Amino acid sequence: MNEQTIQLGHGGGGLLSRELIQREIVSRFGGGALKGLPDGATLPVPPGRSMVFTTDSFVVQPLEFPGGNIGDLAVHGTVNDLAVCGSIPCWLSLALILEEGLPLATLRRVLDSVKRASKDCGVEVVTGDTKVVARGQCDGLYVNTAGIGEAMAGFDLAVERVATGDHVLVSGPVGDHGMAVLAAREGIRITHGVSSDTGPVHRLVQAVREFAPKIKFMRDPTRGGLASVLNEVVEDQPVGILLRESEIPFSAGAKAAAEMLGVDLLQVASEGRMIMLCEATVSESVLKAWRNLPEGRRAVRIGEVTGTKGRVILETVTGGRRLVDVPRGELLPRIC
Amino acid sequence: MNEQTIQLGHGGGGLLSRELIQREIVSRFGGGALKGLPDGATLPVPPGRSMVFTTDSFVVQPLEFPGGNIGDLAVHGTVNDLAVCGSIPCWLSLALILEEGLPLATLRRVLDSVKRASKDCGVEVVTGDTKVVARGQCDGLYVNTAGIGEAMAGFDLAVERVATGDHVLVSGPVGDHGMAVLAAREGIRITHGVSSDTGPVHRLVQAVREFAPKIKFMRDPTRGGLASVLNEVVEDQPVGILLRESEIPFSAGAKAAAEMLGVDLLQVASEGRMIMLCEATVSESVLKAWRNLPEGRRAVRIGEVTGTKGRVILETVTGGRRLVDVPRGELLPRIC
Repeated sequence: MNEQTIQLGHGGGGLLSRELIQREIVSRFGGGALKGLPDGATLPVPPGRSMVFTTDSFVVQPLEFPGGNIGDLAVHGTVNDLAVCGSIPCWLSLALILEEGLPLATLRRVLDSVKRASKDCGVEVVTGDTKVVARGQCDGLYVNTAGIGEAMAGFDLAVERVATGDHVLVSGPVGDHGMAVLAAREGIRITHGVSSDTGPVHRLVQAVREFAPKIKFMRDPTRGGLASVLNEVVEDQPVGILLRESEIPFSAGAKAAAEMLGVDLLQVASEGRMIMLCEATVSESVLKAWRNLPEGRRAVRIGEVTGTKGRVILETVTGGRRLVDVPRGELLPRIC
Repeated sequence: MNEQTIQLGHGGGGLLSRELIQREIVSRFGGGALKGLPDGATLPVPPGRSMVFTTDSFVVQPLEFPGGNIGDLAVHGTVNDLAVCGSIPCWLSLALILEEGLPLATLRRVLDSVKRASKDCGVEVVTGDTKVVARGQCDGLYVNTAGIGEAMAGFDLAVERVATGDHVLVSGPVGDHGMAVLAAREGIRITHGVSSDTGPVHRLVQAVREFAPKIKFMRDPTRGGLASVLNEVVEDQPVGILLRESEIPFSAGAKAAAEMLGVDLLQVASEGRMIMLCEATVSESVLKAWRNLPEGRRAVRIGEVTGTKGRVILETVTGGRRLVDVPRGELLPRIC
């Protein structure tokens, strides 16, 4: 029985630690830089390139939810941060904090997902760390992934470049991740079902490289959702954003869950979507390129940049207008 | 009162999150790449250089202990991993998992330590992440630091190069960190006192660059201590190691605490020491270079590489010999 769960000794730096790492980590990720388990991975950086560096911790609860688990979520989260900075994701680190008593079977499913997602995203897990804490000192498993990407030439992303007339695009329905996790956690059953959108956006970025100079801003709308990201764009800027509610794509399941729980989907996290602000002249071409990819099939333009200084306004389906607020505190804890 | 502790809303991605990050993170680390809080930091990599990448999570308890806290420990841990891989530490990420109710004053002391230690080590915190979990779901504060260093030319570190006759050096007394944390946690009073050795080893590495080709192995002995590191070196190798107990430096405080608690100091973590295996011809020069630095003042040779295949043997002060074992499980949980 003990053999089937994490024990404190798995974190001690002794034989048990080594066994766990050999069996569960090296067996999955040990082909390349991880081989021999050095304290750090040596990376061949192409000459003349800038690198992009990012980090994210994941504390999602439950660890497994419809559409994904904490493992692929962590890979996608870090890959997406690298991608929206205009880089090609290359290398990941993987640091685990395990709670004593965590079923090994759970850990294995999570690590299998890390492996699958990494392969799909073309990134390699090259270094890692494992700590174990006693029962009650974390909630099963916390994951940190840091990542390094290779900056692509041509992108000049800066909110200061955003100008009146620019278009606001989204790569697909928003809010599915947050609603899927919340519904799973609260045990809510939804007629249509809602599944996390956890997935990578790096292909969406690479598909529009040729338009790079005319792209002003890219971001994956995670915590705080569309509302938080777009407010960040216009904060302290001389421009605003007008969104058309009728154009914003939502899945039927997310809509049903949001209504049931009284949540504003504009403030709910996605984990596989991208928001882009670009010059109007290229927006149709960007959408066309995105729609050629499965993850961009439902890409649409949802609004444009206006002169309404510092504000995000929603034109509702009934023709009214309302301010899109930034959530103040925590709507949905432990969503990622 | 609420204002003085971490609340769930600090992790929600909304206004409270932004306030926390602006006040506590950007105010300390926002001078360079962190400015504007992009999803990732863009790093100018010198052409033709390999980079080294590493990660470490920290779950030490108590968060503050004699000689340091989880903040400087995290910086030193990652700086040291980069250094013993033969690189110059350059950039750090900083990811925090905060427990609801954590006093802001504690967080501030920890972040101040991160800042001080980063400055001392010549590294810049360039990207980060903050998550908040509810009371009882972590133990105050967990920290992850990933790091990137620039590989130094000349080092060719590989246990396969270790050969009979090589010398084993240590940069100072071992085991102080583990004993200081344990004594603080258990509330044990020791006559001499024992303070963590948390500190950087990158200067020790840079001080011996000229001897790089004759250096075979470097490592900071953290979890599992000297015993774990040296057993890793000889595991599956045609050589062994003979240590002389009389030469191994211990502080009076660590010795007293270890005796009181029945712990073998060879298995206890240091967080600011370095073990090196090098050719005998350069060991005196290395020691001389180390002793010129405050962190290497008590550097000594503690043994040498022998033909005893795969084994680490200790010649005791009484002239006997015993096998130095790898700890199997967890001796000292949450030491780092």
